[in-house]
Amino acid sequence: MTDALKIGIAGLGTVGAALFRAISTRHNSLAEICGREIIITAVSARDRTRDRGLDLDSVAWFDDPAAMAREADIDVFVELIGGDGDPAHAAVLAALGRGRHVVTANKAMLAKHGVELARLAESNGVLLNFEAAVAGGIPVIKAMRESLTGNSIQRIYGILNGTCNYILTRMQRDNMGFAECLSEAQRLGYAEADPAFDIEGNDTAHKLAILTSLAFGTEIASDEVYVEGITNISIDDIHAADELGYRIKLLGVAQRTASGIEQRVHPTMVPKGSMIAQVEGVTNAVTIEADILGELMLSGPGAGGDATASAVLGDVADIAKSRPGHQHAPALGRPATQLEPYRRARMQSHEGGYFISLKVEDRAGVFASIATRMAENAISLESIVQRARPGRAAVPQTVILVTHATMESNVRAAVDAIKAEGYLAGEPQVIRIERTRES
Amino acid sequence: MTDALKIGIAGLGTVGAALFRAISTRHNSLAEICGREIIITAVSARDRTRDRGLDLDSVAWFDDPAAMAREADIDVFVELIGGDGDPAHAAVLAALGRGRHVVTANKAMLAKHGVELARLAESNGVLLNFEAAVAGGIPVIKAMRESLTGNSIQRIYGILNGTCNYILTRMQRDNMGFAECLSEAQRLGYAEADPAFDIEGNDTAHKLAILTSLAFGTEIASDEVYVEGITNISIDDIHAADELGYRIKLLGVAQRTASGIEQRVHPTMVPKGSMIAQVEGVTNAVTIEADILGELMLSGPGAGGDATASAVLGDVADIAKSRPGHQHAPALGRPATQLEPYRRARMQSHEGGYFISLKVEDRAGVFASIATRMAENAISLESIVQRARPGRAAVPQTVILVTHATMESNVRAAVDAIKAEGYLAGEPQVIRIERTRES
Repeated sequence: MTDALKIGIAGLGTVGAALFRAISTRHNSLAEICGREIIITAVSARDRTRDRGLDLDSVAWFDDPAAMAREADIDVFVELIGGDGDPAHAAVLAALGRGRHVVTANKAMLAKHGVELARLAESNGVLLNFEAAVAGGIPVIKAMRESLTGNSIQRIYGILNGTCNYILTRMQRDNMGFAECLSEAQRLGYAEADPAFDIEGNDTAHKLAILTSLAFGTEIASDEVYVEGITNISIDDIHAADELGYRIKLLGVAQRTASGIEQRVHPTMVPKGSMIAQVEGVTNAVTIEADILGELMLSGPGAGGDATASAVLGDVADIAKSRPGHQHAPALGRPATQLEPYRRARMQSHEGGYFISLKVEDRAGVFASIATRMAENAISLESIVQRARPGRAAVPQTVILVTHATMESNVRAAVDAIKAEGYLAGEPQVIRIERTRES
Repeated sequence: MTDALKIGIAGLGTVGAALFRAISTRHNSLAEICGREIIITAVSARDRTRDRGLDLDSVAWFDDPAAMAREADIDVFVELIGGDGDPAHAAVLAALGRGRHVVTANKAMLAKHGVELARLAESNGVLLNFEAAVAGGIPVIKAMRESLTGNSIQRIYGILNGTCNYILTRMQRDNMGFAECLSEAQRLGYAEADPAFDIEGNDTAHKLAILTSLAFGTEIASDEVYVEGITNISIDDIHAADELGYRIKLLGVAQRTASGIEQRVHPTMVPKGSMIAQVEGVTNAVTIEADILGELMLSGPGAGGDATASAVLGDVADIAKSRPGHQHAPALGRPATQLEPYRRARMQSHEGGYFISLKVEDRAGVFASIATRMAENAISLESIVQRARPGRAAVPQTVILVTHATMESNVRAAVDAIKAEGYLAGEPQVIRIERTRES
């Protein structure tokens, strides 16, 4: 049997502790499957005295993860610190620079520094694995990087943030408002005390930017993602969607178009009967449209200590099974030096169906005016519904439009023209409709 | 760049031709991703003169695949002949014996000879990859063999046969009978001229046996799968399932129990709202319940030339990326010599819910008798529904029972006791209900 694979874990939070336990308790089975032992020789965390229920006696302790990366007797540096800056970034640079493999769950760091880190890993002949960084336990990175080799990807989309999906599911299922669902998610530990990063779509954008690079062979461009969160989604929108046969999901979508690659994160209408509509609660899901394979969907737990640890362990096991220096496994699917620049497709040129909800004052000619503004912008309507509040004449009515495929710039122009008419009784709500295979 | 990887393709049917085209047309992109060229140097098929639209001028032709395996200048032998016997088996033995890697889509061969072939591959230090053998383009083998390393699997179940799922979907959606749907599937090329192997569940059983080995680290035991096909499913069953909130799917299920491992293929009731219930038409899906990760579901095209070729290409690319002789990748997840014998859990001891549909003569005391026979066998009922044909008294009525979790032996004893009463007007229908996460 080959020498044991020695790993150091930086960060002993929920994921780090779950990984430590899994490797310790499954030592023999892992050795049998990997053809060599996997042993933890070093750990690093902020507080040495905290009781994590782990037996750390036989491992070297480092207060500084970068010191562990440089000095510990390890083959693999597992980064579970998080954050796009130091100490995580510095420690990973140090590990790669010293010729150690790196396994990380850090989507923020990869979204910002992924290409630089991939280059460094490749020039040092080591592996950079990050299955856990996107969609938690779902093996979407491996699917993209390995299983789909040779396929050209047309579109990849998914539910990549469990917090948002939990909130939207709860609103829809239990007829609850956004704020109430958010509070509950916080109480249950599904949302952070400061939930902005999740609910405003930034977490999804980071993950999407990584997937985009793998899907299209382009550099990671997380600053060029169009992002809308779910904070404006009301229970009325959820109801209206339901009546029209849709569910609202926060999707991250990357799509090849004639003018470049769209990267967008926004609340999205998906047909009720589609598989992605059935993805509920904190579950994540990713659909990949590939030209040879067809459509592949993966779903599973997108967060949580154990699920994330499982993905990290899979990455560590892959390193244990390979013989260092004898594998061609560029981190982003193709050599980092050969990634193409990301060419952004402008959101204004996005094409698709739109759901538009307008609160209008109840006066003559409004309907005709709305229809005219739409026609002037070459928008053809699939349906138009007026939802009156029963028994309350002369108060604002809601008009809901569903468009056929049209261009975003046209929708924005039409909505601006309607706003200028002066009969709106509130901000218009515009939600994009995503085509799925079933629709 | 490393030397090119030379491959030989045995079998130039739909899959072989699709693979040939993909490798030829994507040569440069594959070389970039894999770090070396992939070139086809040899092919073997039955009829050299047939026009397949492929340029075979620069490749060596072999009438005999075993001769290609022995004599051709190849690193990888791709077996797309099919069938559990020769010439496929002999050719794969020859290839492995000569130290060539093998990629195969042949589930029947693996179900019968998989352990023997895995041993031979491992003792010769070569790889045996077979992603395409189970669930077509869905990367379930890679997920089990790599991503889930370290996880203990509790249950794996899936829709593994597109023909059956197409027929059941069509019956449910369009209110058509079994025979009519089968004819249509044959007309569309979704079912073979002799459909027995698919609709009687044997194809699913082969695939399940392979998954069982990967999931539980046991030898492949395809002869020990409990198999029921879908030929007895009537449109009445589909309607009754629908009314009770279920869909009927042909599932393959492998499950760890106290008395061994269940392997079973049978029509199964799954809750309408579950994700697996949304898997329609020829699409396949697999759900894996793993102790660290949680529940992972993969779905996608389970058959078809292109989807299968995509999986084969992924396997070939994995070999191109690895440096031969420097990877520990046992075919069945752990070394074939260390697989445990398969210990079968008897079907009689299966526990679960049951749907039981009885056609009974319309006479006094029947209901009481049925309820008594159930109680005598310790079966507790979740619901009991009598479905009368409107306006037709004194003709047989249908009584539908749904049980709480109970043991198969009890259900069989109860049904036998009811049959002995003499009031049944036809064979009872018994369909197992499968628990899903959502239910």
